[in-house]
Amino acid sequence: MTFRLIRPQSGILTKKHPLYIMKIRTIFFVSDRTAITAETLGNSLMTQFNGVERDRHVIPFVDTEARALALKKRINDSYTVNEGRPLVFSTFTDDSLREIVAESGCIFYDLFNDYISRMERDLRQESSHEMGKSHGVVDKNSYESRMRAVNYALVNDDGACLEHYQQADVILVGVSRTGKTPTSLFLALQYGVFVANFPITDSDLDNCSLPRAIKPYKKKLFGLTIGAEQLSRIREERRPGSPYASLRTCQREVSQVEELFQLENIPFLNVTAISIEEIAAQIRLTLGFD
Amino acid sequence: MTFRLIRPQSGILTKKHPLYIMKIRTIFFVSDRTAITAETLGNSLMTQFNGVERDRHVIPFVDTEARALALKKRINDSYTVNEGRPLVFSTFTDDSLREIVAESGCIFYDLFNDYISRMERDLRQESSHEMGKSHGVVDKNSYESRMRAVNYALVNDDGACLEHYQQADVILVGVSRTGKTPTSLFLALQYGVFVANFPITDSDLDNCSLPRAIKPYKKKLFGLTIGAEQLSRIREERRPGSPYASLRTCQREVSQVEELFQLENIPFLNVTAISIEEIAAQIRLTLGFD
Repeated sequence: MTFRLIRPQSGILTKKHPLYIMKIRTIFFVSDRTAITAETLGNSLMTQFNGVERDRHVIPFVDTEARALALKKRINDSYTVNEGRPLVFSTFTDDSLREIVAESGCIFYDLFNDYISRMERDLRQESSHEMGKSHGVVDKNSYESRMRAVNYALVNDDGACLEHYQQADVILVGVSRTGKTPTSLFLALQYGVFVANFPITDSDLDNCSLPRAIKPYKKKLFGLTIGAEQLSRIREERRPGSPYASLRTCQREVSQVEELFQLENIPFLNVTAISIEEIAAQIRLTLGFD
Repeated sequence: MTFRLIRPQSGILTKKHPLYIMKIRTIFFVSDRTAITAETLGNSLMTQFNGVERDRHVIPFVDTEARALALKKRINDSYTVNEGRPLVFSTFTDDSLREIVAESGCIFYDLFNDYISRMERDLRQESSHEMGKSHGVVDKNSYESRMRAVNYALVNDDGACLEHYQQADVILVGVSRTGKTPTSLFLALQYGVFVANFPITDSDLDNCSLPRAIKPYKKKLFGLTIGAEQLSRIREERRPGSPYASLRTCQREVSQVEELFQLENIPFLNVTAISIEEIAAQIRLTLGFD
């Protein structure tokens, strides 16, 4: 890593200067493309350092010299007498643009290039040096398939359509408001998985049996469940004071649906304390889409 | 980087052995959490090396010793006489689990730890060593706000509801089938941006004026447009042979809507060759959500 010092308005900054160890910093995620990779890894890394940042900026498409110079100035300007050196997480693929930004005097983490040179040695192959294309339309078929998956998820939301279940990769099941819709959309958008979702209703619970429409597709079913208190809180937002949202109803529904999942041998996940990303990763793992 | 050699069934592998430079490899993205970061950066890096991989596997939640040992075995098994050493992109935060997997004899890229130690030096602060939480529910408010944004996008899709535009961060506008819905959902899911979308219809185009419902929110508008041929192809999938899908209709609508955007000074983007991720990054940049 290069380890340059820049001069704030107040004078020369040396390693002994108190500002040098000042913790509050501005964070930049920068790239000549979308900066999604820089943001994803940079955010991951920052979770390990509490209390460091003042604020974060994502700066994509820095793909001309003029833009790189403007970014360099902006990074320098963010470094005032009240702050430590800004942190910059970069996935620039263009060497000359990267150089301009790296010269800003920030702490520069070159997420892309650090590995590219190691991989070139390990694989004994030169990198293609093509502009970062990881979040562009690289493979037209796979991109269009993701967009089709989004349409599929929307058409097949909440049991709206029973005709297309043969196309489904997964059918999410659960009682109302357990996160089936956002999970379906996330899996579709990120991975092009065809996800339908189907609500388990009171009459299914009372009979302790699966809805008839989804019975033939048992191998595709994945259940979502959730703590009764959180479910009640979420339902209260939608229908305040209703029996539907009452803790008692939620407790009964959750306990019955978990019993149904166990009886029918359907894999399921309690989503109370976990995110869409974690749910999606768990579904991919369980159903073998690795 | 550690540079270990493993022994395939056929005998000792040395640097001179032809298999050593064999290019076809299995790629693993592994983590004790979701592996999303490993997959994102790993996929980015792999775009620079064509023809290297046989297939890719994402292995999340390797959070026990038993799972780490199983993964080590799986990585070793993937390395047969017909393949080069597998590549493993890791974001393990647990040192002992990481060690087990790294010992598999793969080429191991330690995306997380490589930077953590550098950041500890640069920031003069020890990392918190907490389990990777970048894709969990770190900040409950921000997570719930993302889920609310998804609901908002669904309720306010395709001009379905005119009451909530004051809450919108962005209102996407464009003729039918220009990618408004997937873009709205992506911005909501990834960034918690409240995005409504509104269709521009024939009568708006004939009058060359914005629909009345969105006129008061002009500063929030962002236009999507697309090449007429691609639009026609997309519409054909929905209504084959219809006037709606004909190239002539599409050419007219695209040319009229671009004229309208220019007249009304609405920022817009031609999405013909770009992805949802690129559209979202451009919208965030243009409207200043950095």
